[in-house]
Amino acid sequence: MTVPLCLPDIRAAAARIRGIAHRTPVMTSRLVDAACGAHVFFKCENLQRGGAFKIRGAANFILSIPPEDLSKGVVAFSSGNHAQAVAIAAAHVGTHATLVMPTDAPRSKIEATRARGAEIVLYDRLREDREALGAKIARQTGATLVPPYDHPWTIVGQGTTALELLEDVPDLDALIAPIGGGGLLAGCAIAARALSPRIRLFGVEPELANDTYLSLQAGRRIEIPPPATIADGLRSPHPGEITFPILKSHLEAVVLVSEDEIKEAVRFLLSRMKILAEPSGAVPAAAVLSGKLPHDIRNVGVILSGGNVDLDMLAFIAK
Amino acid sequence: MTVPLCLPDIRAAAARIRGIAHRTPVMTSRLVDAACGAHVFFKCENLQRGGAFKIRGAANFILSIPPEDLSKGVVAFSSGNHAQAVAIAAAHVGTHATLVMPTDAPRSKIEATRARGAEIVLYDRLREDREALGAKIARQTGATLVPPYDHPWTIVGQGTTALELLEDVPDLDALIAPIGGGGLLAGCAIAARALSPRIRLFGVEPELANDTYLSLQAGRRIEIPPPATIADGLRSPHPGEITFPILKSHLEAVVLVSEDEIKEAVRFLLSRMKILAEPSGAVPAAAVLSGKLPHDIRNVGVILSGGNVDLDMLAFIAK
Repeated sequence: MTVPLCLPDIRAAAARIRGIAHRTPVMTSRLVDAACGAHVFFKCENLQRGGAFKIRGAANFILSIPPEDLSKGVVAFSSGNHAQAVAIAAAHVGTHATLVMPTDAPRSKIEATRARGAEIVLYDRLREDREALGAKIARQTGATLVPPYDHPWTIVGQGTTALELLEDVPDLDALIAPIGGGGLLAGCAIAARALSPRIRLFGVEPELANDTYLSLQAGRRIEIPPPATIADGLRSPHPGEITFPILKSHLEAVVLVSEDEIKEAVRFLLSRMKILAEPSGAVPAAAVLSGKLPHDIRNVGVILSGGNVDLDMLAFIAK
Repeated sequence: MTVPLCLPDIRAAAARIRGIAHRTPVMTSRLVDAACGAHVFFKCENLQRGGAFKIRGAANFILSIPPEDLSKGVVAFSSGNHAQAVAIAAAHVGTHATLVMPTDAPRSKIEATRARGAEIVLYDRLREDREALGAKIARQTGATLVPPYDHPWTIVGQGTTALELLEDVPDLDALIAPIGGGGLLAGCAIAARALSPRIRLFGVEPELANDTYLSLQAGRRIEIPPPATIADGLRSPHPGEITFPILKSHLEAVVLVSEDEIKEAVRFLLSRMKILAEPSGAVPAAAVLSGKLPHDIRNVGVILSGGNVDLDMLAFIAK
């Protein structure tokens, strides 16, 4: 990319994905505000189609593929929210989706993706390379690979989250979002900075998946061993090539949260706000609830990025 | 009551409780609609202040008490959502609340009620009579007893739920709500019938707590042994004296659901819609999801009455 991504790109994405992605509600809670000492505005992407923000980027990407390529289908490797997002968006435009998922992916995720009409190709995580498998499928079928985060079309799609949030709550002092590969926060940072130049932007990572935290300290992309965090959406071992410089130029800080803080945030959101966030989605709430943001922030937007939790994991968290 | 309750009473209650009770959102889901074969509109009282619709009736009651009595405080016996509702409403108007709760009530409920500023009086469920204890406190202090359901002020307060729902979704064919003592559905039936004369009204009870079902069959109020249903808000052993004739004149049927159907509905709402309903609140969703409503209903309003679940019970439901 030689032309930097900007607000008009995000507005164009918003227009493109209307009718596929929901405009999600912004929720508030007196109990949360009292616990945090600030006004907290949750952008509820757990209530998004497919249960996570991922549909925004996937839909924008798929709708940007030229028609002659789109007719040959799409392929993605993901065992998580990106898989469902690609399946939903592909079904919406009437093209074929192939999802490459590990044999040990949660059965519920495999079934949910198949129920969306996608073809599932399973691979052995210990013996096979999913990227090579995805590339092979793309080569054989002419399908387009839909990247999970490190592509301009994906990033501006994810940025529509902040666009909507700031339309609903224009006077935010700060915005905080989780960082996996960085697509969500990169897109949101571009939108938020353009709409509200003085807004303070924060990323959050699990302590166990602190690749962007370390990369920002080092000033370059650092790779860490596969992270073992409960926040399975944030296990990418390094920031993206495109997302990292965007984060670097916009973030005030990356906050780290412990596994216990993440579980406690899931419990808090469930017991007090009656909404289900997956661990990855609850990570920014964990940062706010544990008082890790600067204390002079009055109005903070929290991107509650997803809500897909296997119920057996929920039983574990509930304890 | 010689004058029957009517829509203007409910509109007056709505004006009275504004600022205490939230106007809750109406949620929909394509997945739910597909599973039910109808358009389902959930009135999310689980997102209400105090986590249940009860604040509506409690606030309307407390705000209807003459000032000279209100200053002497209020008292209620409840270990559940009514307790929290009375505590919140009393704190809002600046009067003292005493809640009579059993020693074996969930610790979380006792703590939550105390955190609202209420005084808790514990009693031994096996040896003491809570009604006598409540009456004694009322006599000694001059406090007014706030009844959980069988009072016109309470009933019209609860009816504001349907008033809001039908303002948001005017073209409902049917409305379905759980029946404990009957206050919620009686109030909602009055509002709904007035706003939409041809609307079909359904109640739902657990099979194990079928007192209203049996009472409607018998044509008179039947008392059953203390019900052991997981839906702890619906364990009243008989319909109310005031609520029963209202239900009798408005309901098309009372639908019964099994304990497994209730648990499955809690799981479904959590995993698909990412919202937490308590078992009592999920009971009408259970009826809809298990196909127990007439199949010619296209647009049905479901009152998801509450969301207060102890997380250890949730672990049990999640399995």
